[in-house]
Amino acid sequence: MVLLGIDPGTRISGFGVIKKEGRQVVLLDCGYLKMASSKPLVERVGIFHRFFTEHIDKWQVTDLALETPFLGKNAQSFLKLGYLRGILYLLADTNTLLLHEFSPREVKQAITGYGGAKKDQVARVILQLFPRIGKPDNDDVTDALAVTLCGLWKQNYTPTR
Amino acid sequence: MVLLGIDPGTRISGFGVIKKEGRQVVLLDCGYLKMASSKPLVERVGIFHRFFTEHIDKWQVTDLALETPFLGKNAQSFLKLGYLRGILYLLADTNTLLLHEFSPREVKQAITGYGGAKKDQVARVILQLFPRIGKPDNDDVTDALAVTLCGLWKQNYTPTR
Repeated sequence: MVLLGIDPGTRISGFGVIKKEGRQVVLLDCGYLKMASSKPLVERVGIFHRFFTEHIDKWQVTDLALETPFLGKNAQSFLKLGYLRGILYLLADTNTLLLHEFSPREVKQAITGYGGAKKDQVARVILQLFPRIGKPDNDDVTDALAVTLCGLWKQNYTPTR
Repeated sequence: MVLLGIDPGTRISGFGVIKKEGRQVVLLDCGYLKMASSKPLVERVGIFHRFFTEHIDKWQVTDLALETPFLGKNAQSFLKLGYLRGILYLLADTNTLLLHEFSPREVKQAITGYGGAKKDQVARVILQLFPRIGKPDNDDVTDALAVTLCGLWKQNYTPTR
């Protein structure tokens, strides 16, 4: 089982790739994709698709973990997040990945034991678990690793597909 | 110039393909893609991607016309529409199509001369212009043809990309 967890964004998308071999959990990769907001959205969608296609191929990913989005104050941001999620659904379909989706609360609960935990509390647990990654440039990486781990720990749950 | 206009939906997606040769306008194809709502969304996103990939190849499409969506009462429907629009953005990128987007008001204005026109008024104009299509099973086809024509008539406008 190789799980890719993604925290998508039209500017920065964090990701983590974790492999489970028997009882061992191995962090294969983590990082983020940064896209200049000056680029047209059509182009960014294409970049996003190519980037994660390559990562799925490279690590022979079997499962995809995502957080369910909620409608914030900005409907346009929510819609654009939908574009990226659509790309991830497509990648799940073309690569026959199992898709696991969790609410932000479920992820926080799984990682810290408390559904109302703050971003930096989640980050702290992730850094304790994977000290070798050092403190990443931005929260999107630890957020993505949190959802990846959540997908791993809850793998007995019924996936969305 | 071969324009593909799409009215995307997770259940029914109407489309029209119109070619412009000199001063002549030729309707190459129109219809709709129907997807059972019992199918998982991941699968439907894949079907949608394949369906329009095939149509773009078949008709050697150069331009894509879409209506800008607005947030209705249901945030989840809006998000799912985002998934399909993301796929269309990807197709625009991979096939280097020019993307044209219009507000519902602009489309109605272009077709009927009145931005506040009703769905059946738009349909009536479309059926007058293309009598050979007969009355299609559903409005999504005439809606898609309306946005396709709007893209054709407004081709001098600056496209989104």
